[in-house]
Amino acid sequence: MKQTYFTPGPAELYPTFYQHLQTALDEQIGSISHRSQRFRDIYRYTDEQLRTLLSVPASHAILFTGSASEIWERILLNCVEHESFHLVNGSFSRKFYDYAKALHKYAHLAEKPFGEGFDYADVEVPEYAELVCVTHNETSSGVQMRTPEIHKLKRKFNKKLFAVDMVSSAPYPDLDFSVIDSAFFSVQKAFGMPAGLGVWIVNDKCLEKAERLQRYEGCVIGAHHTLPVLWKNYQTFETPATPNVLGIYLLGKIAEDFNAIGIDALRRQTEEKARMLYKFLDSSDSYEPFVKEERHRSQTVVVAKTKKPSAEVISAVKQAGMVIGSGYGKFKESQIRIANFPATSAEQVSDLISELKKLA
Amino acid sequence: MKQTYFTPGPAELYPTFYQHLQTALDEQIGSISHRSQRFRDIYRYTDEQLRTLLSVPASHAILFTGSASEIWERILLNCVEHESFHLVNGSFSRKFYDYAKALHKYAHLAEKPFGEGFDYADVEVPEYAELVCVTHNETSSGVQMRTPEIHKLKRKFNKKLFAVDMVSSAPYPDLDFSVIDSAFFSVQKAFGMPAGLGVWIVNDKCLEKAERLQRYEGCVIGAHHTLPVLWKNYQTFETPATPNVLGIYLLGKIAEDFNAIGIDALRRQTEEKARMLYKFLDSSDSYEPFVKEERHRSQTVVVAKTKKPSAEVISAVKQAGMVIGSGYGKFKESQIRIANFPATSAEQVSDLISELKKLA
Repeated sequence: MKQTYFTPGPAELYPTFYQHLQTALDEQIGSISHRSQRFRDIYRYTDEQLRTLLSVPASHAILFTGSASEIWERILLNCVEHESFHLVNGSFSRKFYDYAKALHKYAHLAEKPFGEGFDYADVEVPEYAELVCVTHNETSSGVQMRTPEIHKLKRKFNKKLFAVDMVSSAPYPDLDFSVIDSAFFSVQKAFGMPAGLGVWIVNDKCLEKAERLQRYEGCVIGAHHTLPVLWKNYQTFETPATPNVLGIYLLGKIAEDFNAIGIDALRRQTEEKARMLYKFLDSSDSYEPFVKEERHRSQTVVVAKTKKPSAEVISAVKQAGMVIGSGYGKFKESQIRIANFPATSAEQVSDLISELKKLA
Repeated sequence: MKQTYFTPGPAELYPTFYQHLQTALDEQIGSISHRSQRFRDIYRYTDEQLRTLLSVPASHAILFTGSASEIWERILLNCVEHESFHLVNGSFSRKFYDYAKALHKYAHLAEKPFGEGFDYADVEVPEYAELVCVTHNETSSGVQMRTPEIHKLKRKFNKKLFAVDMVSSAPYPDLDFSVIDSAFFSVQKAFGMPAGLGVWIVNDKCLEKAERLQRYEGCVIGAHHTLPVLWKNYQTFETPATPNVLGIYLLGKIAEDFNAIGIDALRRQTEEKARMLYKFLDSSDSYEPFVKEERHRSQTVVVAKTKKPSAEVISAVKQAGMVIGSGYGKFKESQIRIANFPATSAEQVSDLISELKKLA
């Protein structure tokens, strides 16, 4: 029996994925050269669709990597000479910080307990930090930092480069790319595709920084997927190495479908489904939203404490044809995580809530 | 009309690819968690199939990255403190060397003109080189280095780590992994899959080196996909970040199909098809094998000089439903490149030769 995946990535495939894949196979997209005009047209198309969807201005390039985790490394190598600063409130924001340390950067952090989030007023950016790393949506704990707070922070510290991890929320966050220098995501979350492609939105200021670092003796910005080389290739809608061509094609098609719905409608639908889930959790005796502060509750990854062991809940829901995620790390057995991505409809969310209710 | 792709990667999809993809979609492989038992079973299966196909001993792990180009960088970061040595005879072996320079390694090279290859007797490895980088099959020029020559070289310089680029030839080369420390390929060449997955075969000696470098102050081995972290995750058939799960599944299935044919038969088929192509080129007045020395002629990427402009040849062949590659770089207009991968049968190669003959 086919299951409906409410897991926070890999996740349910977007309903139109199958027909786009069939078209891609019919058109032999898996075999075309990444140096062909056909590929350049595909890249240009996906770029246009994402640009429309996320309101990305001409100052920013849209680049492709193997994963979003790879982008953590590329941003740090290309945009930080000495010091980075990280808002850490979960396992993935911490990994971004760990990457900085592995690269021998002087990495600062501000930390919140698991399940709590950041507001603008909480944060003081260290004087010499070159890059501020913000996680819009912490997949492990279900905490978000609202975009107005991110924008205010950037405006206050406007000399710093800002990188926003929106891995498990894009295209939901309405980031203002006239202030945000870089943001990134992977396709196996809210875009409803199989994993294997990272998307890096990055501006000319980051490029300038990378070019400057590259000229410094003793500063290594990497060899593969360096920003200057990715950027140069992007000018003709090419990539330095063979990319996930099929993934780039499918991403463009799904972004087109999202644009047909309209980003405002898509965001409203996301908020409406999140409201349904949180309302149920708030009213239930068997579950409780893990994140206390409403403004910090993720709209795309809903985390709940369970009275029963989470494995029982997950197993019972699975019997009904739905897959939800366990809690992350040490919360594995006491929490569940429910993805709220565009691939699952309000009706499906309603069905899930009904099943969860039965377990009360 | 569906074309038959004789391009040297991305290339023709392997005929069984479509049915495996359908099974994967039916089983919702695109949605499963990379932390699930289902994923670990898939990784284990693909590992077993590749291990059988390529005779990989227990000393070596089989790891996954976004691409083979990424593996160039990972090998250099993890296995070289100061000095690497590169056999360069084309554009891709040169890129491996360029990556070493970008990472500020002291990179030595021995170079052959485009179209010429290396033999064991040609090569003297510099005294302090830690890693010897050999390209089994140079995709740009159609030159191979035969495996017995690679093995002899390693035995002579057995204290050095050896990394073999077999991007556009695996599974053809019968590398002896009891002597070769590391080798790698990508799936969009002879495995007949869409691009987006690199495969890194690497032994415990490379791991030891990486662990040693990691302890040295001031030595950075990277943050994403470092060898120690990939290796640790591999112990439970996991990956540090979400990999191309669907690609790993499909690779295991195609490797299984290759094993059903048998690696010896597969290699004989490859050689037989290569013989057909070179025999035709040698006997034709309109084409000429670019590589003069028979022993250096690639069995998997056949490069020919064309009397007519190559664009005319490519275009005429395309009319007949077949796609061949242009020459690489400055040879774009005077050469053609023909992939000889398992996805194209002897009959299809024969059809291609007939078309090429018509243009004489």
